[in-house]
Amino acid sequence: MTDTLRINSDRFRSAFDSLALIGSTGDGGVNRPALGDAHLTARKWFREQIESAGLEFCTDGAGNHSALLPANVIAREAKQSPTLLLGSHLDSVPNGGRFDGALGVISAFEVLRTIKDAGIKLKFNLEAIDFTDEEGTLVGLLGSAALAGHLKPEILESPRGGRPALVEGMKRAGLSDESILSAARPADSIAGYLELHIEQGKRLERAQVNIGVVSAIVGISSYQLTFIGRADHAGSTTMQDRLDASLGASAFTLAAREIVLKDFQNCVVNVGKMDFTPGAFNIVPAQVDVSLEFRAPNEDDFKQLDSALIERTQLEAKRFGLDLKADFRGRHSPTPMSDSVQRAFADTCDALNLTHTPLTSGAGHDGQSFANICPVGMIFVPSVDGASHAPREFTEWRDCVNGANVLLQTALRLAK
Amino acid sequence: MTDTLRINSDRFRSAFDSLALIGSTGDGGVNRPALGDAHLTARKWFREQIESAGLEFCTDGAGNHSALLPANVIAREAKQSPTLLLGSHLDSVPNGGRFDGALGVISAFEVLRTIKDAGIKLKFNLEAIDFTDEEGTLVGLLGSAALAGHLKPEILESPRGGRPALVEGMKRAGLSDESILSAARPADSIAGYLELHIEQGKRLERAQVNIGVVSAIVGISSYQLTFIGRADHAGSTTMQDRLDASLGASAFTLAAREIVLKDFQNCVVNVGKMDFTPGAFNIVPAQVDVSLEFRAPNEDDFKQLDSALIERTQLEAKRFGLDLKADFRGRHSPTPMSDSVQRAFADTCDALNLTHTPLTSGAGHDGQSFANICPVGMIFVPSVDGASHAPREFTEWRDCVNGANVLLQTALRLAK
Repeated sequence: MTDTLRINSDRFRSAFDSLALIGSTGDGGVNRPALGDAHLTARKWFREQIESAGLEFCTDGAGNHSALLPANVIAREAKQSPTLLLGSHLDSVPNGGRFDGALGVISAFEVLRTIKDAGIKLKFNLEAIDFTDEEGTLVGLLGSAALAGHLKPEILESPRGGRPALVEGMKRAGLSDESILSAARPADSIAGYLELHIEQGKRLERAQVNIGVVSAIVGISSYQLTFIGRADHAGSTTMQDRLDASLGASAFTLAAREIVLKDFQNCVVNVGKMDFTPGAFNIVPAQVDVSLEFRAPNEDDFKQLDSALIERTQLEAKRFGLDLKADFRGRHSPTPMSDSVQRAFADTCDALNLTHTPLTSGAGHDGQSFANICPVGMIFVPSVDGASHAPREFTEWRDCVNGANVLLQTALRLAK
Repeated sequence: MTDTLRINSDRFRSAFDSLALIGSTGDGGVNRPALGDAHLTARKWFREQIESAGLEFCTDGAGNHSALLPANVIAREAKQSPTLLLGSHLDSVPNGGRFDGALGVISAFEVLRTIKDAGIKLKFNLEAIDFTDEEGTLVGLLGSAALAGHLKPEILESPRGGRPALVEGMKRAGLSDESILSAARPADSIAGYLELHIEQGKRLERAQVNIGVVSAIVGISSYQLTFIGRADHAGSTTMQDRLDASLGASAFTLAAREIVLKDFQNCVVNVGKMDFTPGAFNIVPAQVDVSLEFRAPNEDDFKQLDSALIERTQLEAKRFGLDLKADFRGRHSPTPMSDSVQRAFADTCDALNLTHTPLTSGAGHDGQSFANICPVGMIFVPSVDGASHAPREFTEWRDCVNGANVLLQTALRLAK
């Protein structure tokens, strides 16, 4: 009977804690932006763990790192068997938390070790994968989109983190535009994609529920806005004579929040950064670059919010006599999760006596990349105080173990 | 008769144009932040010009560079004679214009050469001086305050450009806190201070007047404000659960402008820079640092505007649940110019058949540093379209020559 099989909590924790030291910020957080030194060190560590565990190590042209457990058939057939992917990512946002992504990769790895140790026969290959640049320091969902075969070359030409950062990162990791685009796999080689992740919100904690079964991932879109005024002496130029780029940027930032609070209550918007040019106490700002991102749970809201925000940028620019550029930086549509995988997760939770609830994901995830080519499912475990993308991000260890066991048992349901 | 003496326009222009090549940004502007490489190159060039012209070169512990023309008395008495300072600064704001400061230094130098060539006897020493860091990239009015003896050591500990930038700059220039503070001269050694500068506003151009005789320099004050919220995942954190530092910074930026437009019509305010931490598309901003500067023509408005702005920072921080720090970064009181020097300038303009008008200066200038120790006066020449602190800053050459001749004849009136 495989129903009673459980992951090894101590081994799981030991791997999780070792990983958290790589790029540690000393306050519980990690700083591992995609293809930076700390991220590449984490990947080297992951490769060593895979090889020590006696699993097969694989990598591809997009830099994705995997542990492979072949289907229990003769070698030639194993290569032809479809693969059930379990995974997440080892990169972090700047000064992020140690659970986001890392939990999903380490739990997938632990699931493979547990199944390997138990000698269970599988009809699918099982692969625990660490996708490149989920967070979007460079591109966003880079490794999963490349693997799923729908990464467009123009996205690499104008990535949201800027082309120079991508070129630097690819150079450090030994990648190229060509190698990344070559990482695409045939759709029929992928049997499905499962991911365990922290919720990054307060809903499970408030409801005191063990497991969130994700029903859909919100759509996410980003723009680099540029408000353009004129540099002038900040003492001798009257207030009336100024074309101050900070006014458009500030007014838009406040207006964007009001628009969402008033008309798009299931959506969110973020102005994560502004850059002032030239940026001195005594010069009227000539240019302010604004990093804008917004998310919506369905296609209707997504399109309407896009229009409302972009119209508002134009209105605020005009109001202060400014020019405006709005560079589109990428978009992922709202993605419903597979019904059959959602049922399998729910059934597993019931079998393990864990409470569960359907949830939308406010965050983007690599699963979006596979939605059109295979069944995709995700589960969430509770985030203490909802914190994420920050060093205080935390999930109780028993919740991490619950999530890993649901992942294990659901993978067995699907792959046996 | 010295009344007919005029500066050498060609020699003046040749020096001005040579200087404009140092740190040139290729679009008419210069980038010579104080004690940066381009600024130090400009100072080296100035020293060579002084020595080639047969004038005495002097420098001091604050890095001020001067050309000296001794009083026409026996050498021992010259050392005891008071000195009439003529000057300005060779540093620029980042990507600033080629006239701001440079015109004042090069015209003062040309005045000394003209008087030396004419062999005129003077009762005062004449000194053409380039003051360190007028613009405030590091401290603001650094060289003139040091020379006037009222630079406080604590200003050097917490300068508006940040201590690391000051330390780097001092290192490049071979200066130290101690050397800067040692540059103070006895008040009775300074007979007066005269400066020619571009207006940096549109008033002379609109009124079609040749020369502005400055009646007062506005007071200027700066703060580094920090709005402190909390970093959170920008997708999974609801709008209501956020503590978004960008909202306080943006609301204050808009409010500061409204306060000035409504209640302080002779004043100006500038938010020249914001810095976002951590600064990513998908993280709610945890901290926004805001560079605030404001100016007022008299002490009453200056104090009331300070209170109004600082109260508003607190109100906006509170409104969005943010913490706030307001680090005071320096203050210069409003400074009336000497009545007798204003009269001397006006009489000179009349003698030269140049139209003139009294003006306040919306910009700060080194003359502020000397207001309590000697007679101080400034004249402005018209700025085309009022532009300044930007590459399109421009003054017609005939206006530069007019200004230099008024400086020459007024210096002769005072120093003979």
